[in-house]
Amino acid sequence: MEERVEVSILLDLYGELLTDNQKAIMNLYYNEDFSLSEISEINNTSRQAIHDTIKRCYKQLVSYEDRLNLLGKNIKLEETKQKLEHEIAKIEDEIRDSSIKDRLEVIKKILMEEISI
Amino acid sequence: MEERVEVSILLDLYGELLTDNQKAIMNLYYNEDFSLSEISEINNTSRQAIHDTIKRCYKQLVSYEDRLNLLGKNIKLEETKQKLEHEIAKIEDEIRDSSIKDRLEVIKKILMEEISI
Repeated sequence: MEERVEVSILLDLYGELLTDNQKAIMNLYYNEDFSLSEISEINNTSRQAIHDTIKRCYKQLVSYEDRLNLLGKNIKLEETKQKLEHEIAKIEDEIRDSSIKDRLEVIKKILMEEISI
Repeated sequence: MEERVEVSILLDLYGELLTDNQKAIMNLYYNEDFSLSEISEINNTSRQAIHDTIKRCYKQLVSYEDRLNLLGKNIKLEETKQKLEHEIAKIEDEIRDSSIKDRLEVIKKILMEEISI
């Protein structure tokens, strides 16, 4: 996974464990594509201070993932959902009864919309 | 949910964010039912120190749950799994074809064994 994408997902998963200010800086850098200089102007501090904050927060996010593995579990859950959809598709291929087809649609909708971490 | 049960689950979810020593003390108190005096003897410290550690760790676990809501999401995920099983049971009631029944069993097995946080 590309680092920017990975950090953006880790921010979704663990951002609440950072301070509001740390979260805002990480969001500007990884999601809004602001430069270090732009973020340092907004925060009225040095480019170096922002660089250090980003480096420290990045390490913290990786450490949370090492310990809680929520990103890893999310990837596994997505794989399991795909496996279930594949099994449902096999049943759909075999049946003609439209009321059962409707029930399978309900199951697929619940799977897609309600199962996530 | 009873406090002891709730803390035990929070320990499963967030224990890795505590230090090894904090985790060991919380485990003895909430899972192994040791008394404060017994834990203080094992740790070669005062009963009061153990009491303070447990109180501080308890607050930390609750604070993690407030921010990440993993217990809340786990409860919701269990409800969704039950809803899916209920939908599958309705299909099982309507079909006779044993190959489709077998496919539904596969789906139920994946749901039970592979979907969790």
